[in-house]
Amino acid sequence: MTEGTQPGNADPAADTAVGHDAAHAGPPEAARAAVVELLGVLAYGEITAFERLAEDAKMAPTLDDKAALAAMAVAEFHHFERLRAHIASLGVDPADAMEPFVTPLDEFHRHTAPADWLEGLVKAYVGDGIAADFYREVAAHLDPDSRALVEEVLRDTGHSAFVVDAVRSAIERDPRVAGRLALWGRRLMGEALSQAQRVAAERDALSALLVGGLAVPGFDLAEMGRMFTRITEAHTARMATLGLAS
Amino acid sequence: MTEGTQPGNADPAADTAVGHDAAHAGPPEAARAAVVELLGVLAYGEITAFERLAEDAKMAPTLDDKAALAAMAVAEFHHFERLRAHIASLGVDPADAMEPFVTPLDEFHRHTAPADWLEGLVKAYVGDGIAADFYREVAAHLDPDSRALVEEVLRDTGHSAFVVDAVRSAIERDPRVAGRLALWGRRLMGEALSQAQRVAAERDALSALLVGGLAVPGFDLAEMGRMFTRITEAHTARMATLGLAS
Repeated sequence: MTEGTQPGNADPAADTAVGHDAAHAGPPEAARAAVVELLGVLAYGEITAFERLAEDAKMAPTLDDKAALAAMAVAEFHHFERLRAHIASLGVDPADAMEPFVTPLDEFHRHTAPADWLEGLVKAYVGDGIAADFYREVAAHLDPDSRALVEEVLRDTGHSAFVVDAVRSAIERDPRVAGRLALWGRRLMGEALSQAQRVAAERDALSALLVGGLAVPGFDLAEMGRMFTRITEAHTARMATLGLAS
Repeated sequence: MTEGTQPGNADPAADTAVGHDAAHAGPPEAARAAVVELLGVLAYGEITAFERLAEDAKMAPTLDDKAALAAMAVAEFHHFERLRAHIASLGVDPADAMEPFVTPLDEFHRHTAPADWLEGLVKAYVGDGIAADFYREVAAHLDPDSRALVEEVLRDTGHSAFVVDAVRSAIERDPRVAGRLALWGRRLMGEALSQAQRVAAERDALSALLVGGLAVPGFDLAEMGRMFTRITEAHTARMATLGLAS
């Protein structure tokens, strides 16, 4: 389990240790605030993913498909539970930690409501993938407990073989769906980047953490840009796995 | 775990053992068909409960409330997983076992879409309660493996304290909601009975199992009536727990 408290971060005596360690750079209070923001956005992301996958399961063509998407939703909820417990173990109300991210994540889902089962599957796969990439980007900058949790959640992300099979065989049956789903994938990525940039612009501590810890003076737009490039490249690879141009 | 196969039920040599045991009365093939029907309706009931609770979680006034309802949904999905595994262990395709119950259960949910968060909570509580009563009615008539599974699922049904607290404090804040929710509870029960009677009328094997095993000659409408009376009385007690007239 990764629910232990982290007295190191809350220790006022450590406040002078600015920039002595790349992995824990910056004033501990600010670092802790950034970690809480990160866990907050992940937690709210997981519970909204749960809600949307559960909703998309209603469009399943068969009961087996419905159960497969519901199982993905349930996996996201269990991730949420772990993240919530970890936030609480830091002495922070999980709802408070999630609150700043409600609007951007709800906006993302409002702008990307799937019109049918296949769009829902592509969204589940692409969304899961972007979330996993994002986890990977930040895991290196976290304290050991938070890092262990993020890595555990990341390892548990799965069920993607089901989506790949379903999308590829739908394209085999009717090659025209590939064009529509490729457009859909581009729109998903565009909306994800647009909401991520909105969050980054508004949350300085979180942005600093993303670009390499709080030791970085100010907000490094270039490094943020490189991170988005890496995430975009990974998205392209995933679209290809589905048999889709990106 | 209760996922062992049951060669006893599939053994043609046992076909002559009609009525020799109250718990396994009737021709084993018919009894097995009835058990599969029962597990099928329970499994589809659980996965639709998952879907509806996940949908109702979107109406939650706070993130904590949303997480509480989502946790109820996830518990239902885990029940579904156990029931599905048990059906498969009997050599039956779970989707086939569920199929006859898709229309009546979907109709129930279509007729009882909650208009707001409180209606969703009352539906979750009342629906969970009716399902639990139904489990209790049938558990006695099942083979030991199926009975153990149903009892396990029943024990795991919970989270109701959250609903009771939320509904009672909403009534405290505004006593007028009690009248509206009481009407809603009556409508839920009416729809549940109406769909249950529809299922009972169409599924002879299942009905026979419900009224005391397949040894009962024909379809005992009087015993079925008594069962519905017991379930109605339990519903009245639950409504009172919520602070609602029934």
